[in-house]
Amino acid sequence: MNDNEQVTVVFTPSGKRGQVARGTTVLQAARALGVDLDSVCGGRGICSKCQFSPGIGQFAKHGLTVTAEALAPPNAVERRYDEKRGLPPGRRLGCQAQILGDLVVDVPAESQLHRQVVRKSASERVMEMDPATRPFFVEVTPASLEHPDGDAQRLAAALAAQWGIRDLEVPLDLLSRMQPILRAADWKVTAAIWQGGGRPRLIDLWPGLRDAPLLGLAIDLGSTTIAGHLVDLADGRVRASAGVMNPQIRFGEDLMSRVSYAMMNPGGAAEMTAAVRAALADLARALTDAAGCAPRDVVEAVLVCNPVMHHLMLGIDPVELGQAPFAPATSAALDLTAAEIGLSTINPAARAYVLPLIAGHVGADAAAVVLSEAPRTAKAPVLIVDVGTNAEIVLGDRTRVLACSSPTGPAFEGAQISSGQRAAAGAIERVRIDPATREPRFRVIGCDLWSDAPGFAEAAPPITGICGSGIIEAVAEMRLAGLVDASGLIGSAEQTGSARCIAQGRTHAYLLHDGPTPVMVTQGDIRAIQLAKSALYAGARLLMDHFGIAQVDRVVLAGAFGAHISPLHAMVLGMIPDCATEAVVSAGNAAGTGARMALCSVAARRRIETEVTGIERIETALEPRFQEHFVAANALPHATDPFPHLPPLPQVSFNTGGTPGGSGGRRRRRAAGNGE
Amino acid sequence: MNDNEQVTVVFTPSGKRGQVARGTTVLQAARALGVDLDSVCGGRGICSKCQFSPGIGQFAKHGLTVTAEALAPPNAVERRYDEKRGLPPGRRLGCQAQILGDLVVDVPAESQLHRQVVRKSASERVMEMDPATRPFFVEVTPASLEHPDGDAQRLAAALAAQWGIRDLEVPLDLLSRMQPILRAADWKVTAAIWQGGGRPRLIDLWPGLRDAPLLGLAIDLGSTTIAGHLVDLADGRVRASAGVMNPQIRFGEDLMSRVSYAMMNPGGAAEMTAAVRAALADLARALTDAAGCAPRDVVEAVLVCNPVMHHLMLGIDPVELGQAPFAPATSAALDLTAAEIGLSTINPAARAYVLPLIAGHVGADAAAVVLSEAPRTAKAPVLIVDVGTNAEIVLGDRTRVLACSSPTGPAFEGAQISSGQRAAAGAIERVRIDPATREPRFRVIGCDLWSDAPGFAEAAPPITGICGSGIIEAVAEMRLAGLVDASGLIGSAEQTGSARCIAQGRTHAYLLHDGPTPVMVTQGDIRAIQLAKSALYAGARLLMDHFGIAQVDRVVLAGAFGAHISPLHAMVLGMIPDCATEAVVSAGNAAGTGARMALCSVAARRRIETEVTGIERIETALEPRFQEHFVAANALPHATDPFPHLPPLPQVSFNTGGTPGGSGGRRRRRAAGNGE
Repeated sequence: MNDNEQVTVVFTPSGKRGQVARGTTVLQAARALGVDLDSVCGGRGICSKCQFSPGIGQFAKHGLTVTAEALAPPNAVERRYDEKRGLPPGRRLGCQAQILGDLVVDVPAESQLHRQVVRKSASERVMEMDPATRPFFVEVTPASLEHPDGDAQRLAAALAAQWGIRDLEVPLDLLSRMQPILRAADWKVTAAIWQGGGRPRLIDLWPGLRDAPLLGLAIDLGSTTIAGHLVDLADGRVRASAGVMNPQIRFGEDLMSRVSYAMMNPGGAAEMTAAVRAALADLARALTDAAGCAPRDVVEAVLVCNPVMHHLMLGIDPVELGQAPFAPATSAALDLTAAEIGLSTINPAARAYVLPLIAGHVGADAAAVVLSEAPRTAKAPVLIVDVGTNAEIVLGDRTRVLACSSPTGPAFEGAQISSGQRAAAGAIERVRIDPATREPRFRVIGCDLWSDAPGFAEAAPPITGICGSGIIEAVAEMRLAGLVDASGLIGSAEQTGSARCIAQGRTHAYLLHDGPTPVMVTQGDIRAIQLAKSALYAGARLLMDHFGIAQVDRVVLAGAFGAHISPLHAMVLGMIPDCATEAVVSAGNAAGTGARMALCSVAARRRIETEVTGIERIETALEPRFQEHFVAANALPHATDPFPHLPPLPQVSFNTGGTPGGSGGRRRRRAAGNGE
Repeated sequence: MNDNEQVTVVFTPSGKRGQVARGTTVLQAARALGVDLDSVCGGRGICSKCQFSPGIGQFAKHGLTVTAEALAPPNAVERRYDEKRGLPPGRRLGCQAQILGDLVVDVPAESQLHRQVVRKSASERVMEMDPATRPFFVEVTPASLEHPDGDAQRLAAALAAQWGIRDLEVPLDLLSRMQPILRAADWKVTAAIWQGGGRPRLIDLWPGLRDAPLLGLAIDLGSTTIAGHLVDLADGRVRASAGVMNPQIRFGEDLMSRVSYAMMNPGGAAEMTAAVRAALADLARALTDAAGCAPRDVVEAVLVCNPVMHHLMLGIDPVELGQAPFAPATSAALDLTAAEIGLSTINPAARAYVLPLIAGHVGADAAAVVLSEAPRTAKAPVLIVDVGTNAEIVLGDRTRVLACSSPTGPAFEGAQISSGQRAAAGAIERVRIDPATREPRFRVIGCDLWSDAPGFAEAAPPITGICGSGIIEAVAEMRLAGLVDASGLIGSAEQTGSARCIAQGRTHAYLLHDGPTPVMVTQGDIRAIQLAKSALYAGARLLMDHFGIAQVDRVVLAGAFGAHISPLHAMVLGMIPDCATEAVVSAGNAAGTGARMALCSVAARRRIETEVTGIERIETALEPRFQEHFVAANALPHATDPFPHLPPLPQVSFNTGGTPGGSGGRRRRRAAGNGE
């Protein structure tokens, strides 16, 4: 054998193969053959991201016989790495190991740069990993009289030569910080480089080889709650999650009341912008505190939100979103700096990506749901409802995708409910009512036991209220148990035979839990849920009309508490159209998942940017049929639409004339200032 | 004739010619043939930028006979424009006038988009006009339910369709302002678009067709003074000029003392950054006030400065510039937003362009001088000295260009001079001393009369001191009149026969003006000038050594007061090498001119960005010969170098032993805290 000899190398699992010169390193061979083998240090034997396992033996499939001599023994660099840090058994460093003969190289998942990570959620979809911001170890030519150009120019030249990253943009903040870092590190640094589109941009520099992963922030900014995930940008793992209330609630519970606040109060929009930005900054700090990492390690953020929150977060007056034709100032995806949106508690140079809007009433959160749930891949029409204060509703299959948003109000999130509270320890989250005895049992957040199980009283936290999923189940169970009739009226103790039905003026309430803080389901609560679910159902029906179908094949329940809604109960309430219960699946917080996907993958960003342009947008506010659908959907489950997949519901009626509430639009109720 | 017929059109002065279909408008024909014909409204007959004069008659040169019927008579749009606004006699609107026969079209200078404007300065070079930011009138598709995308997307689409401007970037600030502007203007707006490199960027929007020109700010940020020009971006005209003292003087008069301040005081660099940024903002406001225009009309800024000021202005600690190898954080040209450098008193979205540095000691101001004075076009070596607290020195011809900077200190600007003051009313600026009587006469700023002219006492403002050009002439005249010897010593009254030579301790001073504020030239003043001129001369000589020449063909004196230094006096002092006095020309503030050129022309920016990479940089601080040249240059004009172009100077010597001062480095003096 001589050094000009060519040898064959096969990479698994990709199956890529080719000829390389004898003596080539595995990393060089991978690059030459376009194999996805990670490296942060650029082949210096210090990051160990390029680890592989050599395959020795007969490989009939590849037509190769690999001998133990096919790889050179570990060189000094590799031996030192193994001594200092330790390589897993059977692993070699790709940047050091020289190929001397025909070889099969197995690239483990953790050495794949664009690896796919299986999500641990119900839907088990894979998460692509090609984050916009990645670390690159680089050796910079030291400043000298022979190289009188700037540090930034020499860093850019090193990145071009060592990583092929050209035309680097260095923000002013980094220019002011880079000189001491480069010198303290003897010109060997790890650069975080953003490559999300356009010119690559320097985000930060660390001395030497940075071992700790870079982090990103995925934020689902809802009208009522803000959910954030701190994500490891190397493997997509969620390091910490947290949710806070949107402080804009004090300016109005639903979106239109916030738009009104901006219209009626000079400076009102700016006030709401300041409030939500402060909350975002606080949330980011809470997440880094919880994960025990430095704010500076968070080098990217992705935000999804509905159009009104989008504008308020960006500092744009939402007034145009409150009136036809509901034109947003911008609907395209945005690449900003975190500083521009006041996200001051992460890396000062971090980038912030905002998903595109679909239309003035259909937001970046809906785009995130589309990204996450991929209706374009469905063979038969799938209905995706992202439940929140504003519901994002998407209906589509591989032929077309329609989207709308519907103002459900905050009832599904436990607001406007007499004993309502957010989903936190002490909140009732699951409810069952015995149809015979009409006695309830429930579970509270913070305890795995049902309330009728032994030891519950000792194990459970103090019961403080009922959260969104709890009230949905409670109302559905009351309907199933014959405590509530189809019009939504709660029967009296006499009518129902249950002493838990307590008179409250001219209506009745059901006592779910008696204690220091009694939890009741009042007639007003039922009305609030009816209004919310009517809006949701009407939106879904409107899309079905436009799609030209009367039945959907599959329903995906998404939203912050989507995972907690049982399909049966959602259908008993008539939140969603009739469907086989096994075809109703929960996707958890699909908007949040979409945000995480965009955080982890530039390809996902480009995909949703393209896809939104093909989505047909329906404006519920301008469709006369929406109001018809809304009124018909007030009944439980529905006044006219059949629900053949439901069990027969009790044929009760508690209307004794002069009933309060009844049907009617929520707008009228709101206008009357009547919270029931 | 029919409509498919082709006709010949010739444009003058470009001489471009071609065939167009009969019925084509002159603007369409110009675009088709690549003729430079301006238009802001895009052919709607409202801006009148496309005016031309038709040529009727025999054109032997072009081989054309043009009849009066070659142009269609004015249509309704053109007639309305003429009635409402009035067209100059013989002028037609290029966007409306249809070509019906062979035609000669004369494009007046003001209708040329990239016109060249002759500078009104001594050197009479032309100023190219292709500014980065220009106005474009555009009609945007109104928001509607059929077009549910964002206003920004519809504006971008309109700019692409109507002006070929693609991939528009809209900054967040504009997103938050554009919606009301678009609606108030019925979707017809003038957009200021920056096209300085990379993606085009929206800078501002005005309702309807904007008539007023867009303005730019050219700033020469010196160590001692900051000069600013407010420039019309349509024609390059200077609308207002102003200068202020650099407030950083309180942290140190020269650059190295400011670097020391930053090194010795935590937060010192930030303090100096805040001071200079505040001064820039104040200067911008003073300029817009003086010109009577709105801050928002100023849509661009260009800055030139030495490396230390560059770093301090950008908020970068200049510590590395104070020690070898003098590496700047960045040496490339910078495209920033004005907001990033605290320039809050112009348009909030304005761009700020900073010229490239040449090296750690040779700044963007030197680059601006190179841009302005174009040494690459010289057939024989030309020496360009930009006189300031730090002198930028460039030597070059068409074969090579060398540059260095030399720390002259602020004496040439009237600082460190006993009666020194900045160039303002009441400052002595010109001096003549009669060689026979040794009596002086002078002129002061604010009065055109010499001090010995009748009526001077009544016409002149109160005399308050002497400015930079005044002290240079005073010292040179003292040398010419035999009041100062070659070593720089002032003679006594006895030695010189002049009662104006007054003893001050062991040295003498010359009384230039007696009055409420007497103006003296002291021995200390002479020493300060000697130090400054030695540094300047030594730098020039060092470049000549590297270039391999002992003589220069031409000297260009630049700098804020370059126009005021007489060549003879500069040479008597030995500020510059010997040269025929008629070959010493003043270029005024060449750095400022370079800044204006970069402000008016994107091509000029690209040119200097390329050119700086080819400039050979000499570090005076590291050249042993610099110190030799410096010491030898202490004498007036020089200890050893011949000055054959000077008249014979008086052979006097006032050294009586034990003379104070003498030669010696300025660093030693500074270190002793001796300001003399």
